[in-house]
Formats: sequence, C-alpha cells, structure tokens
Amino acid sequence: MIMSIAVKIDGFISQSSLIRRMFEEGIELKKQFGPQNVFDFSLGNPDVPPPQIFQDELRRLVEEEMDGKHAYMPNAGYPATRQAIAGYLSGIHGNEILLDQLVMTCGAGGALNVIFKTLLDPGDEVVVPSPCFVEYAFYVDNAGGIVKYVASKDDFSLDLQAIEDGITQKTKAILINSPNNPTGKVYDAASIANLAGILVRKSRQFGRSIYLISDEPYSDIVYDGIQVPSIFKAYPNSIIASSYSKTLSLAGERIGYIAANPAIEDEKQLMAGLILCNRMLGFVNAPALMQRVVARLQGVKVDVAVYKRKRDLLCEGLANAGYDIVKPEGAFYLFPKTPIPDDVAFAETLKKYRVLTVPGSGFVGPGHIRIAYCVDDEKIINAMEGFEKAMKEFK
Amino acid sequence: MIMSIAVKIDGFISQSSLIRRMFEEGIELKKQFGPQNVFDFSLGNPDVPPPQIFQDELRRLVEEEMDGKHAYMPNAGYPATRQAIAGYLSGIHGNEILLDQLVMTCGAGGALNVIFKTLLDPGDEVVVPSPCFVEYAFYVDNAGGIVKYVASKDDFSLDLQAIEDGITQKTKAILINSPNNPTGKVYDAASIANLAGILVRKSRQFGRSIYLISDEPYSDIVYDGIQVPSIFKAYPNSIIASSYSKTLSLAGERIGYIAANPAIEDEKQLMAGLILCNRMLGFVNAPALMQRVVARLQGVKVDVAVYKRKRDLLCEGLANAGYDIVKPEGAFYLFPKTPIPDDVAFAETLKKYRVLTVPGSGFVGPGHIRIAYCVDDEKIINAMEGFEKAMKEFK
Repeated sequence: MIMSIAVKIDGFISQSSLIRRMFEEGIELKKQFGPQNVFDFSLGNPDVPPPQIFQDELRRLVEEEMDGKHAYMPNAGYPATRQAIAGYLSGIHGNEILLDQLVMTCGAGGALNVIFKTLLDPGDEVVVPSPCFVEYAFYVDNAGGIVKYVASKDDFSLDLQAIEDGITQKTKAILINSPNNPTGKVYDAASIANLAGILVRKSRQFGRSIYLISDEPYSDIVYDGIQVPSIFKAYPNSIIASSYSKTLSLAGERIGYIAANPAIEDEKQLMAGLILCNRMLGFVNAPALMQRVVARLQGVKVDVAVYKRKRDLLCEGLANAGYDIVKPEGAFYLFPKTPIPDDVAFAETLKKYRVLTVPGSGFVGPGHIRIAYCVDDEKIINAMEGFEKAMKEFK
Repeated sequence: MIMSIAVKIDGFISQSSLIRRMFEEGIELKKQFGPQNVFDFSLGNPDVPPPQIFQDELRRLVEEEMDGKHAYMPNAGYPATRQAIAGYLSGIHGNEILLDQLVMTCGAGGALNVIFKTLLDPGDEVVVPSPCFVEYAFYVDNAGGIVKYVASKDDFSLDLQAIEDGITQKTKAILINSPNNPTGKVYDAASIANLAGILVRKSRQFGRSIYLISDEPYSDIVYDGIQVPSIFKAYPNSIIASSYSKTLSLAGERIGYIAANPAIEDEKQLMAGLILCNRMLGFVNAPALMQRVVARLQGVKVDVAVYKRKRDLLCEGLANAGYDIVKPEGAFYLFPKTPIPDDVAFAETLKKYRVLTVPGSGFVGPGHIRIAYCVDDEKIINAMEGFEKAMKEFK
C-alpha cells in the first residue's frame, strides 16, 4: 500500500518531530516535577487577560436581540466592523481608509493565507527577513510560492542591501513582521522608508509590482514609547495582516483582518480576489460574534505595562547571567544568542534545569533560543537559576 | 505591468461574475421594489434561530471565570469539546469514537480543506457525485488535487456504476454530501453499503486506499423520519466533515469538526497530519468560545419542523405550477428541473417576476435551478405567482 497521507505533509510531520518531542518531554517534566516547578517559555500564548471592557461588550452583545445574529454575513465581514476598523486605521496611518479596503479574517494566520493565495502565481517568490515565524513558509507554500529568507543584522534590524540583492524577477512580495516574533525587533521608520525605496526601484527594474506585506499582530505590544512605523505612509502597494490575538488577548477566537493601502494599484480586483480567497480557502468569514465585539473596541488594548515588567525582569536577569541579548522593543519574545552554536543542544541543556525554550533553528535563527515571556513573573524569577547554571556549563 | 493578482484567481473572479451579477441585480431589485417585494431564494443562510438553550449556554459561558478563556488551546481543540462530540458520535454510529479521532475546525469548509491538504498528493483525484456544492472544486484544487464529477441519477441518487467507472489509479478519495446541497437528497443505506463495496474492490485493484469523505453539515436537517446512514459503519477508511452551521444555525461562527473512523488505517499519522494542516492552513484552531458552547449542546438542534413546513409549502406550490421536482429528504434546498435546458435563461425569467434563484450550472447541475427555502413562509407564498408565470412562458 502507498502511504495514506500526502508525501509532503508526512515530511512536514517528520521535520517538526524535534520540537514536538521537546514539547512532549515538557509535558512529562510537568507530570514528574509538578507544573509549578517547570519553567515553560515555549509558547506564545498571551497570559494577560482581555481588558474588562471586552468582557462588558461581549456580555452586552450576547444579550442583544438581532435577526441572524450568528448567521452568514457578507464574506468580507460586517460592514459596521470594517467601518470601525477603517476609521481607526485612518487615524493611525494618516490617510483615509475605507471599509472597502478591509476584509475580516480568521486571525492574522488566516489573513496571510488569503493574501498569498490572492497574489501568488506558481513559483512566485516571497522575500522574508529572518529570523521569523516559521509558519510563513507553509503559508507561502500553500499558495504555490517560494520563500526566500534574507538574514537580518546581528541586532535584528533589516539588512537592506541583502534584501535588495535577494529580490529577483520572480519576487512578488516581501513579508515583514514588526514587532518581530521571535526577536521583539521593531523596524524603524528609516528602514521602512529605505525598504520602500528599494521596492519602488525593483518594481520598475523588473516591470512588476512588488507588494510589501506587513504582519502586525503585535503592533500594540510595544515598549519605551516606540511606535510601529506606518507601511501605508511609506509604500502604496502595501497590505497589513493583523489580529486581536495579542492586542486583546483573543488568540483562540481567531479574529483578525486584512487592510489594503487605499493607494494600492488595481484595488478593485485585489479586494475581489481577497474576498473570494477568504471563501475558497474554507474560512468563509471571520467568526460573527467576535466581529461585532471588536467593532466596539478600536484602540483598546491589554495592559502592556505587564509585559514590559516581564521583559525587564527577564532581560536584567539574563544579562547578569552572561547572556548576549538584544532588548526587545515589542512583542513578548526574547531571542538571546546561545553560548554554543548548537541551539538545539543548548535548549536541551536548559531542559535539564526544567527550563523550556524553543531552539532558534525553529525560527530560521540558529545559534539562538526563543524565550516567550508571556508567563507569570514568578516563573521568570524562579527560572533564573536554571538559566545561570546552563550558561555556566559553557562559559 | 504584469497583472497584480494571481492569474488563477483572476480567472475564478471572471467565472463567478455571472452569479455575482445576478446577486448585484438582486440588490438593485430590492432597492427598487422594497425587500418585501423581492423573493430571494438564492442564499443558504439558515433563518431558523438557534435554540434557546444555545443562548442560555452562551450567556453562562460568557460569565464563567476561567484562565486563558480566549487563549490558544491545543490546535485540535479543547479535549472536553472533542470528548463530548466523540461521545455523541459513538452513540450515533454505534462504534467507540475517541477524542483522539476528533479535530475541531473553522466550520465544515475548514474541515474539508484540512482533510484534502492532509490526504492529497499533486494530481490525486477526488470523485464527487454531481450536482454538488461548487466550492468543493476549489477545496480540492487548493490542495493540488483534481475533481472528477460523476453525474447522479435523475432522482439525485448515486449512480454507482458511473462512480465505479470514474475511479482510477489516481483516485484518492470520494466526497459525498448527504443531505445534499443543492438537491436535498439523502443517500440511503443500501447505496452507501454498495459504494463501500466498490471502494473496497477498487482499493484492492489499485493497491491504494481510497477514502470516503462525507460532508454532513445538514445531517440533522432531515424530514419524514429519514436518517442519514452511518459511513463509519459502512467503510473503515472514512472521514466525516461537519459543522454546527445548520444544526444550531451558527453558520457565521465557523464552528465544525473532522471525525475519523476509529478503524481508519494509519490513524496516528492521519490525525497528526490533520492537526498540522489545521495550523498550516492558517485556521490554527476553531474559535474558542464556540468550542466550549457546542460541547454542551450535543444532540440539540434547531426546530426542523419549521423547515419541513417550508419544504411542503414550496413543493406543493411548484408541483401545482407544473415544475418537475424531486421532494427533498433533507437540507433546505429544492432543485427543480427548468422547463428549458438553459437554466441561466430560466433564472433570468424568474427574476423578471422578482424571484431570485441560482442556476443549476453553478452546482454542476445544468437544467435546474436551486431554490434555498430557508426564508419566511410569506416569501414562499408570495413568490408562487412569479414561479407560475415564469413556467407559463415556456409550457
């Protein structure tokens, strides 16, 4: 008999077996030592609760009388929700965004799949600065495209020359993620402006529009007064994928959106494609009740000070323990260098001390580990001893 | 400049322009004559409200205190939800289904995309009896597969000989939908048993497992004491895709599931593939709050008597008006023959009388129209004059 599942999927399962094994061993450790004695930094699951006003609005909407309350709505989403988000984004980006430029999606992951399906012809390339969220490669592959990783600089800022060199005749888009998972980097306004300049030049050179896609679910989780620069201001052929997973701690509810730059070329056909692909890929529409909730919560966010406190606690502790870190400007990840090149081996060492992290190789960033610090402060404090001991084994 | 969006998507947009144009003209008609004077049977949007107990459970769960209430859970879904559904399905199918055989999905559309992505290698064929829901072709194509339509008999029952003839070396699966959209047909136990026999023979002949996939979102919307036969009892390599869109009138909430036959071969790898693909395709997990609600509503359904009343009203009226119909056994669609072969022209004729339907060509069933009777009784009653007049133009 031939294998039952697709060869490609079988391969992906094997590839992910290392991280899965670590995950399963983590569960074993928790059984053995008790969950409070295992320091699990492996999951990017927001632990700050949704704001109280979310709870109030949800309760209010559950009581509201309305025909077809949980029924299909237009595939792009409720007009009132898209209008509310368009209005909010207009204020952020300083240009007038209309509801016609919005499509509600099942989270940012859904948004990116819809965008790539709409844009990519088979063999089209998408340039992705690394380290990055590894699922991007799946999303691009789902649509028949090819990911071209371009390594960022040591401080995780964009290597603009390398990006320019990485763009070819086949490049259809560049995908950035700022604040970045796994590094916490926010690309500054100057690098976005310079990136835009490169894309204008290269689009002209190859006679083909290159799209700037920005995955921004962490845009509200930023520290020290930093702001995420607007890609809409910088470059017309730009598209934002975002969600309320982190802004409102709703990761499990799968509520996000696509916003296209009002100045994007061929706008009508692009939006028709996005709406069609939202349906074609089986998302159909973003969940109805959550669409109505987020419409009323534009500009609301979780208490970011909580994440900042955790970041500072972790950075100070690890710096003292001799870790080589770049202080995150946003998101809730720290991506320190490992004292040995083999990040998998170092993650295994940390696990001896019941500290669970993800090897940087899982984020196209070998020689690092990703620490998701969306955990109780006590976990950070109590994990320090393990972090120190693991470092001492190599330094 | 090269076209901005993918060539394939551009083509799909053009292909769907006919139905979109009819849809837009319908909106125009409603503006012109008032919505109450336009008889819109074009959308399969359940109009029976969710049962009261759904509202009660939703309210209760919204008030419930719980850590990480809207956070990520395991990608397969909450264990408690999968356990509840597994228990319910065990009773229906008469074999013991475990939570490990369940994956919660963003509706049945999400479920089917996840299943095809998991199973299909490029060029694999999926046999689909027609008429059928046209999005199936997209779902199979998304995963690199090819749909092979096999026309059903005039009474919409399966043409088993044609299905057997349609299975080749490349066939990986057959997808059935019972109760059927657009015909309302429920395939009886004998045809399912015979179909299983064919699949056993053909799997042996080609040395390759052929999967029976059943899309069953309408399984609770059945009339006259009819039951949907269990594919799990009939054939081991079988998978059910379903949702609560119709059972509980929650189409907009995108909550459904995949259930694999406990006897399916290579079960562990298959389930690992399904869970990985749920993440890879950007669904990540089914919406959290709705997962918790449906866990408590196993066996609950909307008031099917309401749909039955509409069915009877419509069937009687159209039979009297000279329409050639097969009385639906389930779902909320009627698929009468058109008096002329050109179903698009007949749908246009109906539109003159402000009656909106979808040409059967949109469901791989030319020479018919689809009437979605999930509408107010008054619409059905008041539309009859238009149905009669349109028929008289040709008979």
